[in-house]
Amino acid sequence: MRVAVLSIGTELTRGEIHNTNASWLSEQVTQLGVEVACGETIPDDVAVIVASLRRLGTDYDVILTTGGLGPTTDDLTAASVADCLGVPLVRDVASHEHIKALVERRGRALTASNAKQADFPAGANVLANSQGTAPGFQVRIGRADAYFMPGVPGEMKPMFTQHVLPQLAKIPSDCTSVLRLKTFGASESSINDSLAGIEQQHSVVIGYRVQFPEIEVKVLACRDNRAEADAAVLNSALVVRERLGNLVYGEDVDSLPRVVAQRLRALGRSLSLAESCTGGLLSDLLTAEPASDYFLGAVVCYSNTVKQSLLGVSAETLATHGAVSEATVREMARGAQLGLGSDYALAISGIAGPTGATADKPLGRVHIALAMPDQVLTEEFTFYGNRRQVQQRAAYTALNLLRLQLGPSA
Amino acid sequence: MRVAVLSIGTELTRGEIHNTNASWLSEQVTQLGVEVACGETIPDDVAVIVASLRRLGTDYDVILTTGGLGPTTDDLTAASVADCLGVPLVRDVASHEHIKALVERRGRALTASNAKQADFPAGANVLANSQGTAPGFQVRIGRADAYFMPGVPGEMKPMFTQHVLPQLAKIPSDCTSVLRLKTFGASESSINDSLAGIEQQHSVVIGYRVQFPEIEVKVLACRDNRAEADAAVLNSALVVRERLGNLVYGEDVDSLPRVVAQRLRALGRSLSLAESCTGGLLSDLLTAEPASDYFLGAVVCYSNTVKQSLLGVSAETLATHGAVSEATVREMARGAQLGLGSDYALAISGIAGPTGATADKPLGRVHIALAMPDQVLTEEFTFYGNRRQVQQRAAYTALNLLRLQLGPSA
Repeated sequence: MRVAVLSIGTELTRGEIHNTNASWLSEQVTQLGVEVACGETIPDDVAVIVASLRRLGTDYDVILTTGGLGPTTDDLTAASVADCLGVPLVRDVASHEHIKALVERRGRALTASNAKQADFPAGANVLANSQGTAPGFQVRIGRADAYFMPGVPGEMKPMFTQHVLPQLAKIPSDCTSVLRLKTFGASESSINDSLAGIEQQHSVVIGYRVQFPEIEVKVLACRDNRAEADAAVLNSALVVRERLGNLVYGEDVDSLPRVVAQRLRALGRSLSLAESCTGGLLSDLLTAEPASDYFLGAVVCYSNTVKQSLLGVSAETLATHGAVSEATVREMARGAQLGLGSDYALAISGIAGPTGATADKPLGRVHIALAMPDQVLTEEFTFYGNRRQVQQRAAYTALNLLRLQLGPSA
Repeated sequence: MRVAVLSIGTELTRGEIHNTNASWLSEQVTQLGVEVACGETIPDDVAVIVASLRRLGTDYDVILTTGGLGPTTDDLTAASVADCLGVPLVRDVASHEHIKALVERRGRALTASNAKQADFPAGANVLANSQGTAPGFQVRIGRADAYFMPGVPGEMKPMFTQHVLPQLAKIPSDCTSVLRLKTFGASESSINDSLAGIEQQHSVVIGYRVQFPEIEVKVLACRDNRAEADAAVLNSALVVRERLGNLVYGEDVDSLPRVVAQRLRALGRSLSLAESCTGGLLSDLLTAEPASDYFLGAVVCYSNTVKQSLLGVSAETLATHGAVSEATVREMARGAQLGLGSDYALAISGIAGPTGATADKPLGRVHIALAMPDQVLTEEFTFYGNRRQVQQRAAYTALNLLRLQLGPSA
């Protein structure tokens, strides 16, 4: 089954909004085990819409279209479809009643603009809109079943789920299974090199997605049925995990902050932070989700004075070694652990740039310390990238250091 | 000039990520006064890429392509272009050196996967990548100038701006001028109502873009030449500013954190923070750019113990009024101001959710305090939205409170 997603709207071809409908529809289709072969985005222009529909109707089995069903003069989809099929527009009485009732319930009178939304190409099957005034419709164009839905996501999604998905699900297809492994600590190309040969050996497809600073490794198998596809993915994912070792921290919806949080909760341990160059980023990453059951707080010690007054870093350490040093970050971690009363504490100090580098401390130099109940670990890094990238690498690296110390969650 | 935007990547046709590259490129092209006639999204598949390029090369003058230039086995764009043109892939020595130097600077050895990124279809013009390993390239396909750029937005955007835009800008077109006004504190629809009539009166187009929690108001004019377009935009922007008053905090590249930072710098004043429910988000917003000349630090006082020990909030205040109260947030602000030694201090405490609401304190209830040299201002809010949205509204609202107190920067 070859599926195309066609998005109609000048606001899209002008880049005024992101095309979230196309990605949502593509995801829905992929979950059926079918690949979307093509996405197309075109303006509200009858000639362009007609040409696209003719071409897609020749090459595809299903066309999922959104947009251009509204009440305004620039909504031209139904007229374009009628033009493409060489049929007139015909008013659908039931839709007209639905629109009239809805508009009047909103305290307004039915206008000609609204009424136009009840006009469909002759022979079309109307798709009810449970959320708004614009019904959708389905027609046959060439070899394709073409579905036309509104561009408003809140109206399109229920219409797709209620009226289109059940039709698509009837069509038999190959079965696809996907597993995502989340990794941190190696580059895309080095992971790719580590996994050489697995695709051929297991007849699976391995894909990579950079979600800076993490790399997601996706394992995908297509088989004749779902059970075989699932088994192939699980088998090859085992090999991927074996090759990548503890670079893999989780699967699918896992995130590094979430995995560390789960582990701390399971152990009944608490965490605090002392952040200098990351300026609160790590604290924000942890508290983007509820965290009060393991996270006590953080000191963002941007100035040296604050390092001394709130974390007890000694003036001598700062004078001798500087703020970006193993000695300072060690005292910061201990200071947070003692001052905030946590079991673990992470401390980060570095030169995020763009200025601040010295002869012996380059841009990207970051010291990280992890205070544990019995000892303090420290590590020195030189991260590349711009200021924001150095901050992100530093925050994730600190979190990963803690993850590796806490051990596997299994 | 007919322009097509071609996005290559199976992660796009599977709907795993939104296609923000296509909307960004479309916006850039629109700003040149040229309409994008078509956007197309296809998977990493040589046959599909070749077929698309052949078709687009027949119908369009410019093809802007992103994706598939990475080091991994699923990056197939260069090979597909070579196939389409019937030429071999040829290694570009300069690009190879660039990639090698970059990889080695990152402390790794050059792998075959990386080296592959220096292979281009014979005859291609290489486009340098200032941000990463994957250079882009330009070739002629049919009647079209086809540009190939990386899919990583942070690498694609500078490449487009530096190497592609100057080529496109040579082509004469109508003159378009655009100004963006940045606002915070009112909804899209209420701003829209305030600006009624300006479009008709000044023959301009006003657009809105939600960049949560801010609203960007875009004023766009098309005229016969650039000077007229600029004048029309400036005149109507004056009217927009008059109507919106101090909802407007800046223009174009301004951001709320940047505007507040500039103002504090100009006044020679320092700032510290005490964050509870925002968990370091505001501190992160301020330190995403260099901030050490005005920002001293923050206490993320997620637990009540930390509110007492590091900020000196009294046990009595917490017991009587609770952590989410005007009294507590006032003491937090004073505590940060005194403890970190800053001129100004912002404090935030609230219920971000999804749990924690009580009979008299609903989800989204947030107290904000601003400690100034002579007094402490406090304000109570009830924000709607999910946890993350409440955190973001709270952080921006606190920053805006400080902006309004500091007065205009002019």
